[in-house]
Amino acid sequence: MDLKKELKKRRDFFDKQLEKFLSKGEPETLYDALRHLPLAGGKRLRPILSMISCESVNGDVIQVVPLSIAIELVHNFTLVHDDIMDKSKLRRGLPSVHKKFGEPTAIIAGDLLFAKAFESIHATTGDLESFKNVEYGLIDCIREICEGQQMDMEFEKRSIVNEEEYLEMIRKKTAVFFQYSAEAGAILGGGTKEQVNALNEYGLSLGLGFQIWDDYLDISSNEDTLGKDIGNDIRNGKKTLIACHCLNNAKGEDKKTLQKIFGHQNATDRDVKTVHDLFKKIGSIEYAKKTATDFCNKAKKSIELLPDTDAKQIMIDLVEYATFKRKK
Amino acid sequence: MDLKKELKKRRDFFDKQLEKFLSKGEPETLYDALRHLPLAGGKRLRPILSMISCESVNGDVIQVVPLSIAIELVHNFTLVHDDIMDKSKLRRGLPSVHKKFGEPTAIIAGDLLFAKAFESIHATTGDLESFKNVEYGLIDCIREICEGQQMDMEFEKRSIVNEEEYLEMIRKKTAVFFQYSAEAGAILGGGTKEQVNALNEYGLSLGLGFQIWDDYLDISSNEDTLGKDIGNDIRNGKKTLIACHCLNNAKGEDKKTLQKIFGHQNATDRDVKTVHDLFKKIGSIEYAKKTATDFCNKAKKSIELLPDTDAKQIMIDLVEYATFKRKK
Repeated sequence: MDLKKELKKRRDFFDKQLEKFLSKGEPETLYDALRHLPLAGGKRLRPILSMISCESVNGDVIQVVPLSIAIELVHNFTLVHDDIMDKSKLRRGLPSVHKKFGEPTAIIAGDLLFAKAFESIHATTGDLESFKNVEYGLIDCIREICEGQQMDMEFEKRSIVNEEEYLEMIRKKTAVFFQYSAEAGAILGGGTKEQVNALNEYGLSLGLGFQIWDDYLDISSNEDTLGKDIGNDIRNGKKTLIACHCLNNAKGEDKKTLQKIFGHQNATDRDVKTVHDLFKKIGSIEYAKKTATDFCNKAKKSIELLPDTDAKQIMIDLVEYATFKRKK
Repeated sequence: MDLKKELKKRRDFFDKQLEKFLSKGEPETLYDALRHLPLAGGKRLRPILSMISCESVNGDVIQVVPLSIAIELVHNFTLVHDDIMDKSKLRRGLPSVHKKFGEPTAIIAGDLLFAKAFESIHATTGDLESFKNVEYGLIDCIREICEGQQMDMEFEKRSIVNEEEYLEMIRKKTAVFFQYSAEAGAILGGGTKEQVNALNEYGLSLGLGFQIWDDYLDISSNEDTLGKDIGNDIRNGKKTLIACHCLNNAKGEDKKTLQKIFGHQNATDRDVKTVHDLFKKIGSIEYAKKTATDFCNKAKKSIELLPDTDAKQIMIDLVEYATFKRKK
């Protein structure tokens, strides 16, 4: 099984459907802003997950097309608004929507992406009860994503965050959406209750592993150079699992040093290196790697009960692709 | 019939339901930001319209409670985001959400209000087909509101806008939501197709009349003092019906004077007065008043076919209340 080929096949199919759905409209500028990010590519992990999940319970993938588009649009709406909040200038190698179109139009474009997501999901065929459940799940998911984003912002201002709080934040901000994508794909694919639960569990663990691995990659992929991002994260007091672990486990002098530097805008490059060395010394980087690995193994284990299909194998391999084999 | 008493009865009922629905949550700050504007009061015109519309076709008002909450939350979500775009500091006599909670939290609070609106509408009971139609209508409405808001912003930068374009803009930005509120209330109230169409027409005309009257009030209520708002609107080149009419009908020297002042930030107070005098001379203020009146009469006429009920009388009186009898 060539995972990349399998993913590309589905991504190409999905991209065509998305392009068709996101047709131009008036006012032209608004629709250009709306299309800017979703049509700029991306891994399409979440919509592909909903498609493969549907396949894994022997569902017809056509049934999840409206859902998969809705999922990607919701993801993009959160990115457009997050980029405004974070003042991010770039996304997927292009200027962010607010950089290119201005903040007011970017806010509206985000809102319109939100509305278009629900327009898409309304094209779901099949029984109305399932449609209503799946749609309600998406609404609930967005609520949790909003809560997670707020938690993330508030954590930056706090001096310490414990691991449980951190996990709850990334569960809401990132993992619930993987969980939802996998679960909803299985529901629309006609999976049994047991299968739907298994895929729900798979999505949640994959999402947690994915986000922690992201934190790990941010640190480890720039380790030699300690690039700008690591410095910014340390100066901003960004509460990754690595930072949370270190803040909660450093003792004595180490703890004092950490408190003096972490979250302070005036930290020097040398300070940044000191904190990074502490992350290593306390074992926080290794701890994050292990935690991500545990979630990945849990994800793979949770779908053991599914029938042996190509889709199941893709899901197993996808865990590696979304984490260990991923590059920044 | 004491209209104010009838409206207050329904507003009090609605406010209780809204307060119950918008319970506190975590993160606390986000839920404080979420509740800030919706619980700060307001006329509740749109939700009350959906309730009265339901009553007017002899429906049970309990059936439209989830819808009416959704309508008010969508209205509030657009206000929260609009205030960010317009940099407005005040709303309903309180600091705007972004002034009180910061822009990032205000963006998320707006998104969460959007999601909560759909959470509310999902509590609609009755047949699923009606629920799906009514919910889809709300999505479509939001799409048009986004388009209308973008048009409004773009119009400010244009030197001229014709009346047709102006009407299309306010139809999308304001009137579709009145139209939707009236129509959806009638659908959930079990109205006949003819009744639903009549209430759709009523809402549309009321919404157009309401918005044009708003433009008229902005100018006429401050006429003696020519307050800050009038000056700002003229300096910003705000395309009200009055401005559009004047720009399209002024000739010769008047036209040149208008083009020299209207939409220019450096216009003096004397310039503002000159433009205001032109609005009067060309008959644009009277024209707007007449246009609003025509829409109001159309609104009243469109519901003639409804059975004679208290609700019908309220709807007739509401037209006056929302326009001629309204104060800034």
